[in-house]
Amino acid sequence: MAKKKTEAPITGITVSKEEDFSAWYTEILNKAELADIRYNVKGFVVYREWATMTIKKMYAKYEKLLEKNGHLPLTMPSLIPESNFHLEAQHVEGFTPEVFWVTEAGSSGKLTERLALRPTSETALYKMYPLWIHSYKDLPFKRYLSCQVWRYETKMTRPFFRGREFHWIEAHNVYATMEDAMDQVKEDMEMAYEMLQEEFAIPIIFFERPQWDKFPGAVSTFAADVLMGSGKVMQQPSTHLLGQNFSKPFNIKFIDKDGEEKYGYQTCYGPAISRIYGAMIAFLGDDKGLILPFDFSPIQIVIVPILYKGKEQVVLKTAKEVYENLKDKYIVKLDDSDLSVGSKFYYWELKGVPLRIEIGPKDIEDNQVVVVKRHDGKKLIIKKEDLIAQIDDLAQNYTKEIKKKSMIDFDSQIEVAYEKDAAIEAINNGKIVCCGFCSIDMDAYPCAEVVEKDIGGFVRGRRFDEEKHEFATCLICGKPAGCTVYIAKSY
Amino acid sequence: MAKKKTEAPITGITVSKEEDFSAWYTEILNKAELADIRYNVKGFVVYREWATMTIKKMYAKYEKLLEKNGHLPLTMPSLIPESNFHLEAQHVEGFTPEVFWVTEAGSSGKLTERLALRPTSETALYKMYPLWIHSYKDLPFKRYLSCQVWRYETKMTRPFFRGREFHWIEAHNVYATMEDAMDQVKEDMEMAYEMLQEEFAIPIIFFERPQWDKFPGAVSTFAADVLMGSGKVMQQPSTHLLGQNFSKPFNIKFIDKDGEEKYGYQTCYGPAISRIYGAMIAFLGDDKGLILPFDFSPIQIVIVPILYKGKEQVVLKTAKEVYENLKDKYIVKLDDSDLSVGSKFYYWELKGVPLRIEIGPKDIEDNQVVVVKRHDGKKLIIKKEDLIAQIDDLAQNYTKEIKKKSMIDFDSQIEVAYEKDAAIEAINNGKIVCCGFCSIDMDAYPCAEVVEKDIGGFVRGRRFDEEKHEFATCLICGKPAGCTVYIAKSY
Repeated sequence: MAKKKTEAPITGITVSKEEDFSAWYTEILNKAELADIRYNVKGFVVYREWATMTIKKMYAKYEKLLEKNGHLPLTMPSLIPESNFHLEAQHVEGFTPEVFWVTEAGSSGKLTERLALRPTSETALYKMYPLWIHSYKDLPFKRYLSCQVWRYETKMTRPFFRGREFHWIEAHNVYATMEDAMDQVKEDMEMAYEMLQEEFAIPIIFFERPQWDKFPGAVSTFAADVLMGSGKVMQQPSTHLLGQNFSKPFNIKFIDKDGEEKYGYQTCYGPAISRIYGAMIAFLGDDKGLILPFDFSPIQIVIVPILYKGKEQVVLKTAKEVYENLKDKYIVKLDDSDLSVGSKFYYWELKGVPLRIEIGPKDIEDNQVVVVKRHDGKKLIIKKEDLIAQIDDLAQNYTKEIKKKSMIDFDSQIEVAYEKDAAIEAINNGKIVCCGFCSIDMDAYPCAEVVEKDIGGFVRGRRFDEEKHEFATCLICGKPAGCTVYIAKSY
Repeated sequence: MAKKKTEAPITGITVSKEEDFSAWYTEILNKAELADIRYNVKGFVVYREWATMTIKKMYAKYEKLLEKNGHLPLTMPSLIPESNFHLEAQHVEGFTPEVFWVTEAGSSGKLTERLALRPTSETALYKMYPLWIHSYKDLPFKRYLSCQVWRYETKMTRPFFRGREFHWIEAHNVYATMEDAMDQVKEDMEMAYEMLQEEFAIPIIFFERPQWDKFPGAVSTFAADVLMGSGKVMQQPSTHLLGQNFSKPFNIKFIDKDGEEKYGYQTCYGPAISRIYGAMIAFLGDDKGLILPFDFSPIQIVIVPILYKGKEQVVLKTAKEVYENLKDKYIVKLDDSDLSVGSKFYYWELKGVPLRIEIGPKDIEDNQVVVVKRHDGKKLIIKKEDLIAQIDDLAQNYTKEIKKKSMIDFDSQIEVAYEKDAAIEAINNGKIVCCGFCSIDMDAYPCAEVVEKDIGGFVRGRRFDEEKHEFATCLICGKPAGCTVYIAKSY
């Protein structure tokens, strides 16, 4: 019995990513059903099923690494009393414009104190730390929360990239010395490289942010920028050296080995998983839809039987056998719906399913199946007896191949500039500008304002790892350069 | 080199669970470091590391079963506009006294519409369903959210049992017919039995709740009561038949096979994972501390080396070997801290670690180790060469043994009563009363008020599975009985 073929309403993306990134991104969100912006609170979106499934896998992977590195999970209340919030002056100043306030409850009406929906958890958690930390033996104290935070964004929101509610991990650590805290910052950066570059196939680079762009309350902020190509960057996990800026007002002290009571040194770290997912869509996707690293696709292999009249039973039987052979090892979907074969191909390409197995009557005669890799569209004809070994091989190499193809070398993105005009030209040509700058301290802020206004990019900061370029003067004011910085456009 | 032994400040629980459950529960929360009630917002607590780790495992298990049964995950915003909330009249009436309201944001001050912190997600999610559901082909539509909800509880809060923020799963399904919806209610109950009884070792029974105790907006509510022993119960996962009560105001329609547009039939289901965890502590724990099912303990096996002077190296070496042999298969901790052996025993018993392996110099001479099971304290002497096989055996049987020992047979809890005085006596004797009742419809509410006032228990409802007891008259008013109900004290 031949099934009636129904054409799916879904076809591939109609806008080219290269020509109009913004329209492409909107279309992929809709067509691959990743986010729904029609929820009726401004700046809040629904993460659809396919996105939620990948994000859950990303959380699990990141949490596993944090735990391997000695972090333990905690669950914190999401409401923070306004009074906690006021304990650290820079923090309250930085976050107040972004806070949602709970002011009323139930029938009893007004609360006696406003409660912040956490925009970040320092001021909730650090009220507890003095209750838990007493001695040097309690240190290092490494904890993390997997939670959502709320920020009343005034900038334009875009699903996963920037929203008024987003989902992240925040790690909050306490050490006995500033050196130990700085080592944690380095570990945080290594974790970001391991997760983003190795697992999620997204190229990043870390900068020490200028003082005018640091986390409110931090001594310094080290933030990853995703290299999106064409000189554009997108901010991702950042780690903050807090020093004693919070431990003093929050009274986080310990008795040291020498018997003295001392304030702890702190760090915090915040990989925004939902935002990293946005970068994954944006960086890896192409004009056919999503491309996902093998381990993070909700379905890893889709089997599409090619049904010809009179041969349906034998094809379906073989497809089911293949499904049975693979399903214990991989997440496999046998798509035996009554859509046309073409619609199925489009649909699963849109969804980014890494491997597609096609089985038709001819393949059965030849004792083979056809396997197509999503990321490069390459077709392989595989003998049935080699199937499992070959699939294992393809599965193991899939993410590696993506990385090889798409990793962006930082050096290829940069252009050294000695004059403002050259910098403007470089930025317009899709480059990241490498130049001399007064410093990244607050007194260099006037020069940074000129960069933003005249050059059309932002000072991303000082490279954290080795710096190969040296400059005599600041690109903007011409005074002696204190450091080398990078200027880029950002999403 | 003999290590200096430091006495741990922690000893076992000092209050007997049987004599003073409430004090016992408070003490286990503190001493096993499960929750911290010192967070400075009333009704909000911190879930500590050990609790968070178990709760994560419980979530993963429940989500896996939901997905196996065809549910897909979604991520919804946690703020709900007041206008959504008003669409279903009973729902708004039921939940309004419990809602936290966000009314202000950032520097812009007052919001134009109040936003509810979700007390439950029907009115958020069901605004989206008409955008996603169009045809009978989209049904059944089965989705779940893993999230926290907020309720401005006016009753006394107690960590995990009842709080103003708690963590649950909510599943929201749409069907073409009422019969299909009712089948989902049955599946939900089966899932609750599988999870709570089989996995978490907590005995439950389902009742159809009286109409005065149903979920606001539901046609009927089916709720699990945990049998806590001594006739007391504690409400756990409930599943609600919503019929078309929400699909009509929220406009959730589909084109049926016959081409007609129809309203969907809905169900929702809400296992509160944090509350189930509370039941796990309360039901399984003993006067030494926690008892946990094997798969849900953050550490499954602790190895305690018994160090005698001059023999430390050989003992530690053997302990490490045992650790290496087990660590790939189980979550193992080698406790080589400098606390005394007795302190370590107390501590890990308090934490509920299922198996403790003790290794001393004498054991090494005899080529053996000592294994102690937490739940019954039984000691086994195991030859080193048999260790892995024996541990596998112990691990596989541990939860089964707990269940065998602690499962409560519902029939053993009940006492049939034909008169009010007999019912009062039965309740005071720690029994669940089984009796005749007018009905569980709203017009029987006056009789239920008498039950609460005079008998000191609550009408839990009508048994959902087979009912063996029949009564001629209502226990309270003496009119002809419409059904058999159960009356119990509850936590």
